[in-house]
Amino acid sequence: MKSIKIVFIGGGNVAYHLAPALYSKGYDVLQIYSRTIESAELLAAKVKARATCSMSEITNDADLYIVSLRDDAMLALVEDIARGKEDTLIVHTSGSIPMSTWKGKSSRYGVAYPMQTFSKQKALDFSTIPFFLEANNEADLKLLENIFGSLSDKVYRADSDLRKKLHLSAVFACNFANHMYTIAADLLQKYDIPFDVLLALIDETTAKVHTVEPSKAQTGPAIRGDKVVMNRHLEMLSDMPEAQEIYREISNSIQNIKYKES
Amino acid sequence: MKSIKIVFIGGGNVAYHLAPALYSKGYDVLQIYSRTIESAELLAAKVKARATCSMSEITNDADLYIVSLRDDAMLALVEDIARGKEDTLIVHTSGSIPMSTWKGKSSRYGVAYPMQTFSKQKALDFSTIPFFLEANNEADLKLLENIFGSLSDKVYRADSDLRKKLHLSAVFACNFANHMYTIAADLLQKYDIPFDVLLALIDETTAKVHTVEPSKAQTGPAIRGDKVVMNRHLEMLSDMPEAQEIYREISNSIQNIKYKES
Repeated sequence: MKSIKIVFIGGGNVAYHLAPALYSKGYDVLQIYSRTIESAELLAAKVKARATCSMSEITNDADLYIVSLRDDAMLALVEDIARGKEDTLIVHTSGSIPMSTWKGKSSRYGVAYPMQTFSKQKALDFSTIPFFLEANNEADLKLLENIFGSLSDKVYRADSDLRKKLHLSAVFACNFANHMYTIAADLLQKYDIPFDVLLALIDETTAKVHTVEPSKAQTGPAIRGDKVVMNRHLEMLSDMPEAQEIYREISNSIQNIKYKES
Repeated sequence: MKSIKIVFIGGGNVAYHLAPALYSKGYDVLQIYSRTIESAELLAAKVKARATCSMSEITNDADLYIVSLRDDAMLALVEDIARGKEDTLIVHTSGSIPMSTWKGKSSRYGVAYPMQTFSKQKALDFSTIPFFLEANNEADLKLLENIFGSLSDKVYRADSDLRKKLHLSAVFACNFANHMYTIAADLLQKYDIPFDVLLALIDETTAKVHTVEPSKAQTGPAIRGDKVVMNRHLEMLSDMPEAQEIYREISNSIQNIKYKES
């Protein structure tokens, strides 16, 4: 199993963590393709692979191609990627692109979607990251379960429709929650207060949803229907119209959920 | 110091955690007032105090009155609360009500704002909760520092203007981030997927902002400017117009911050 040779197509945040993780489990990473040679080389050096920024230089000698590109970049390159690898397993890591994208381009294809937020600056423990796997044949699905099961205890089968739904919910739970932190950080910066003061609160908000349903864990002026506070906050945001509009929308939505559940 | 006698006015989430915490440090809790006798009794039993739901029955014998009511309820009761306690220290725990609310009603007053999210279902470690304190005289401010310093290692002085700003940023970082979890949970429930699948992602999103600025930690379709994915997501939300509008607003805001910073 460990003699499987892998090529990564993409040098972004997912590949940046996934390639070294698989390399550390004994998988052989042959090559890293990235749009810029700098980012290909940076990652290739970590996994003793060759670097390239030219699609035509991608080797056909691997057993598995893992595509971690932006969705629009990948969709534009599907035919180029599959060329010469028609009988080799190709998988992408995107949560939102259907597996059927590869149909007719390759005979063996699948998806390995790690539901996690990857940033280059922050190391990750792969053992708790859920991987959602799909393949167009059972043998390759088993192969993917073996490979990604060597990294994570949480390997599930999920078709493209289910994965799309998981991805949408992840955008709210991760990307949009993080944007709330960004607005809070912008406010604190404007007021010259260090962001650190919020960390205990942020940690507790997160810890709570491990044991309490998020809608039942809600606190603050909107769920209390405290118009005095909400109006004062909207006034304080008068010079930040975008944050003000987000404040209004989310507060309304919190109050609507309250009425729905009571 | 420990012989200080405290009355709690309010039996909501903050009092529900704060009264037992102070009781466990040896403070004497005389009485709990709450709007309903049931909630007053529930909390009073935990701290061996008397319960009342009548403002006129609140004793004048305490050394400290801690007011933890909804902002609008408190503002309506300021005169009633202060009556007969004009020379006793009264503090409120709300982040958004100015200390000056007590001016002319009492001679000794202040604020003790714990920046945390309190839910009855979830126990809390007070030692990491920041308390922001204010009083109208130095002796009482020192007294508050002693009392709340017995619970927490993070006791700061903050005037009403600073506290108002902290509170607004906390609404984004806590209440609004939690609402993103609520929408994610609603989506997963609609799709019949357990909420648990998101916990590793939520934990990592939170862990990341301990070491990376939130705006630099942002991932997902909006920061990548991935219109294909965003449009598909908006389509998937067509039967949830409120969540769809929130998706649009926040995605725009993420993209605007991207342009601002690049």
